[in-house]
Parts: sequence; structure tokens; C-alpha cells
Amino acid sequence: MNKGFHVAVVGATGAVGEQMIKTLENRDFPISKLTLLSSKRSAGKKVVFKGEEVTVQEATPDSFEGVQIALFSAGGSVSKVLAPEAVKRGAIVVDNTSAFRMDENTPLVVPEVNEHALHDHNGIIANPNCSTIQMVVALEPIRKAYGLKRIIVSTYQAVSGAGAAAVEELMNQTKSILNGEEHTPSILPVGSDEKKYQIAFNAIPQIDKFQDNGFTFEEMKMINETKKIMEADIPVAATCVRLPVATGHSESVFVEIEKDGVTATEIQELLASADGVTLQDNIKEQVYPMPAHSVGKNDVFVGRIRKDLTDDKGFHMWVVSDNLLKGAAWNSVQIAESLVKLGLVK
Amino acid sequence: MNKGFHVAVVGATGAVGEQMIKTLENRDFPISKLTLLSSKRSAGKKVVFKGEEVTVQEATPDSFEGVQIALFSAGGSVSKVLAPEAVKRGAIVVDNTSAFRMDENTPLVVPEVNEHALHDHNGIIANPNCSTIQMVVALEPIRKAYGLKRIIVSTYQAVSGAGAAAVEELMNQTKSILNGEEHTPSILPVGSDEKKYQIAFNAIPQIDKFQDNGFTFEEMKMINETKKIMEADIPVAATCVRLPVATGHSESVFVEIEKDGVTATEIQELLASADGVTLQDNIKEQVYPMPAHSVGKNDVFVGRIRKDLTDDKGFHMWVVSDNLLKGAAWNSVQIAESLVKLGLVK
Repeated sequence: MNKGFHVAVVGATGAVGEQMIKTLENRDFPISKLTLLSSKRSAGKKVVFKGEEVTVQEATPDSFEGVQIALFSAGGSVSKVLAPEAVKRGAIVVDNTSAFRMDENTPLVVPEVNEHALHDHNGIIANPNCSTIQMVVALEPIRKAYGLKRIIVSTYQAVSGAGAAAVEELMNQTKSILNGEEHTPSILPVGSDEKKYQIAFNAIPQIDKFQDNGFTFEEMKMINETKKIMEADIPVAATCVRLPVATGHSESVFVEIEKDGVTATEIQELLASADGVTLQDNIKEQVYPMPAHSVGKNDVFVGRIRKDLTDDKGFHMWVVSDNLLKGAAWNSVQIAESLVKLGLVK
Repeated sequence: MNKGFHVAVVGATGAVGEQMIKTLENRDFPISKLTLLSSKRSAGKKVVFKGEEVTVQEATPDSFEGVQIALFSAGGSVSKVLAPEAVKRGAIVVDNTSAFRMDENTPLVVPEVNEHALHDHNGIIANPNCSTIQMVVALEPIRKAYGLKRIIVSTYQAVSGAGAAAVEELMNQTKSILNGEEHTPSILPVGSDEKKYQIAFNAIPQIDKFQDNGFTFEEMKMINETKKIMEADIPVAATCVRLPVATGHSESVFVEIEKDGVTATEIQELLASADGVTLQDNIKEQVYPMPAHSVGKNDVFVGRIRKDLTDDKGFHMWVVSDNLLKGAAWNSVQIAESLVKLGLVK
């Protein structure tokens, strides 16, 4: 890769946008011009990229003139309006919101799982939900080798998934509680929902809004997106829970595979050599993944792999990843790298 | 209940012992004499019970002379030595440690589930593990009405389950991290295990030591104790995780029932009228159980009850309770109340 591209980051001042810019820098992504875009409110801020100051500009349709790759992470409503404008002007959009994920004309891509789907893009590629991405990276090698009959997942999700303001709320609330002061939650569990609850020293079993079927939208994302990414109609059940953790999502995953007689050791060996996975599974040495150890790393960490005690086809495992990186910024940049590699960027 | 009993609390200065004393007071348990016992190190401390100071004494075999009911929560090794001494001297022991739980001559009792087992006691009654108790209280009504084919649980456990020192570690570590100071974990995940990890703003997938089968001892407690309490050979799978929460265990529970065609509404109605359960399940109003709201309450709180989207016999729910109360002190005192009610205290 010796030529550079004109890349735009939309939502450049947000928790994910910030990580996208860092990741583009760390990966030495071939960039000829970097356009940083945000809401009117954040426009004017300055961001340092490879030692040079870049001024953040207000995102408008015309901002995308000449842009070849646009990474969006400014909320679904922004993507719905501006992503088609970017495409109209010749950009390929990698969208980190839920706006286009289930749209049948939009590929939903985790490069380790379905990079090939990029060929079918119509201008927009959707980046899946953070909790879905790390799960499918861990489970796709198992699906390929042994088939998957069913997935049941309970998540342990960090507040940065709800944005930088949610992290601030966790930290300020924690301080207040330690100092015996009053605190009034104003963001979590869901910014746009009515009731707010304490997250410090608590666990909230609601991420995103409730749907009519009793599941939250976050849970339905895991259920529906997994099928689309794996291109397989696998029954998935999810319970999504927010924790007082700043960054790093964890998941307790149960799978039933199709094949008989597989051992936990075989699953461990499979994942030890899987793309994007780091196996951390040595219980004798108390080695297992933890969110605090995942921060700043691109991989998905898997451990606690063990066979169910009565179900020969059942396996339990613990899957952890930095939700801002593999769950968002890194997966988006990785998609951009794949697009370049496959010659799909004009 | 108009006569009083000579009651002893062993481990009176610990996190659970403290709650036992408070619970005896709150319940107005009929007490003629209260003997508070501890290790040599804590002996001499004074505790206020119903407005009067009681001095904590070092626990020795002779401490149990005249004691009719002894509530033990001072660790398994203390129970192993002193519980038989108490029984020898005529006391009934309610033991909150794992020392006798799986002993076939010792009933393992959650009054809402198997109060009848108290009749078979041989001096010692075991109080189950905290995470097991709240789960069986929530699931027994479902088992009775519809049968249970399988249970898969992922826990979200508070540090007070590891004792008062673990709570102190969480709070001090949290302060250090907020202040950007160094901190060296010294207790969690398991006091007696080799490696220590940060719990503040983290999640640790290890509670108690690992067994050869890849499960932790905490997970095996949930698996084995559930079968003994429910008197049914139900396959249980557990993943136990420690959270930065001081008090209140949460559980994401999946069950497969025997009966076809049951609705989530039927399960909700069943639990709304179940002993020891408070249903908190109104997603339209964002009502669901949370550990921060469970502290100081005796009940088991159940919410997020919903049917699996593909498995007609599968149901998901979220179960929360104060691990020091129903999970320990309250269940022990409740056993003592049942013993009195059934005329089993000499």
C-alpha cells in the first residue's frame, strides 16, 4: 500500500471517533488527507494526528467532496442523513451505528468472519454492534469446525459503549459515593430512555431500549447480527448487562455444537490459532481474560473454555475485548484495510 | 413464640456475622441469652444487641455449654472443628460454610424450598452457598409447576461474598485508581489462591479455586447444591464472576422447563405469589432488579422474565438478592425460625 487515501472520520470527538483516529495512526493507514467531522457543537476542536494539528469541522453533505473512505460513528440519525450524501460523492462509508446493519443491501462485516461480503457493498458497509463482534470472532472458528446449534450469551458490558459522557458519569458517581455525597444519574442506562439509574457499584440489566418481545434492542442486535454475519440461522439468546467498568466488554458464552465427542482441548487448540483471537486459558496459573487487561488491545481474548458436565455438545467460555477497539474503531479501520486490500476503494 | 433460646453466633465480627446479629434483632427472634464468638484476634470487641453491649468471646468447645442454637459463619475450618463440639453439648448448628453442605447426613436447607429436610438433621443444618440460595428460591416454583430440564446460570457477584476485607479492598482500590495512585491487590479473587487481581472497574471470572474439571469450586457449589436442595437431578451449568459491587448478587438464568406452551406471563404470575420472591418485572416502566436496590432486603428479586425466541420451553430471567441476607444471614436465621416453629430446638 503506497498510495494514500482521503479519509474522513465523522464523530471525531466522540469516544469511538477518538479511537478511530488513534487506530488509523497506529496502523499507519495510507492517508493522503484526513478530514475530521463532528456536530456543530464540537467543530473547531483540534486533534493531533501524526504530529500535526487537524481542526474538526462541522459535518455537512459537502464535507464529503473528494473523500474516498468515511468512517462514521456519530449516532444513527447522523449516519442516516449523511452516509448517503458521502456515497453520492463517491466515498465508501464504514458505518459504526445501527442505522444500516440489518439493511439487506448493506454488508455487515467482521473481517475475520465474512470479509468476502465486502464485494457486495453498495457504498455503505456496516460495522456490527460491539458485543456481537467479539462473540462472532470467538465462535466462527468453532462454527466452521464443528457447526453451531445454539448460542446463549450473558454480557458484562462497559459504560464506554454508551459514550464518553457515560464514562464520566461512572467516574463522578463513584467519587460521590465514596465521599458520601449525593449524585443524580443523568445518562445510564439509556440516554434516550426515561429512567436513569446508578451504575457505580451496581449492575443494570438494560442496554438500549426494550422491544415488545421483552428483549432489549442491544440483545436483539446480538441475536440478529450474529445470524447475518455468520450467514447461518443459528438460534441466539442474549441477556445484556451494564457494569461499572469503563472499557472492556466480557461475555459468558454457552454454545451447543453439532458434532459429538469434541473436547475442550480441541476447542482451545482451534482458538489458539484463530485470526484475531488470543487464547488466555490456563486455570492452573489463574490465567483468564479480564476487561482491565484488554484495554488498548485489538484482539478478542478467550478463556475459561470447558465442556458442559452433562451435555456432550455443550461448551462454556469467557470472551473479553476492548469494546472501543475490536468492538468499534479497530473493526472499522480493519474493514477499511480490507477494502484497500481487495481493491474496492476508488 | 414466647420462650427464649440461648443463641450463639460464631464469627460475630465478620461481614455475615454482623448481619446475623442485626437480623436476629430485626426479626425479634426469641433469645434468652446471646453468646457472640470469634477468633482470639477479634475477641473483646463489643457489639450492641437490642440496646445492650455484648462482649465477643473467643470460641472454644466450652463456649457452647448451654447453647441451644448456634449460627456459624467463621470459615469452613472453624466449623469442622467446633460445630461437632457444639452439637455434642446439645446445640443445633446452622452452618453457613461449605464444610458440611454435601455431607449426606446434613440437610442443606432453603426454607422456601425444602424446610421438611430439617426433620432429618443430626445436629447440623447447612446453609447453602449465597449464589445457590437466591437461584433456587426463584426456580423452585417453576420446577414445581412445570418441571426443570436444565439450568444455565451466569453470575454477577458482589465482593462482600468474599468478606469484609474484600469490600475494603474494592473501596480502597477504587479510590487509588480515581486518584491515579498505585494499588496492589491482596485479597481477590481468592484469598487462599496465588494470584491477586484488580477488582475495581474490572470483572474477574474466578470465585473460589479451580477444580480439575475446569469449573471453580463456586460453580460446583451451584451445580451440586441445587440438586441436593431441590432433591432432583437437574443438569446445572454455572459461570461465576466477581464484580466491583459491594453487596447484592445478580444472576442471568436460563431454564428449560418440561412443559410445552407455557408463557412468560404465566411464569411472572407464578413468581408474583411465590414465597420469598418479589417480582420486579415491568419493562415499560424500566422496572427490573438491581443489586444497589436489593441491599438490606430479605427477598429474592426477579425480573426480565422472557421466553426464548426459538425454544418453546426456554425462559430467561434476572435474579438479584442481598448476598449477606438471603444469601447468608437471613437464610440462617430463617432456618432457626423454622427449627423453632417445627419444635426441633431442645
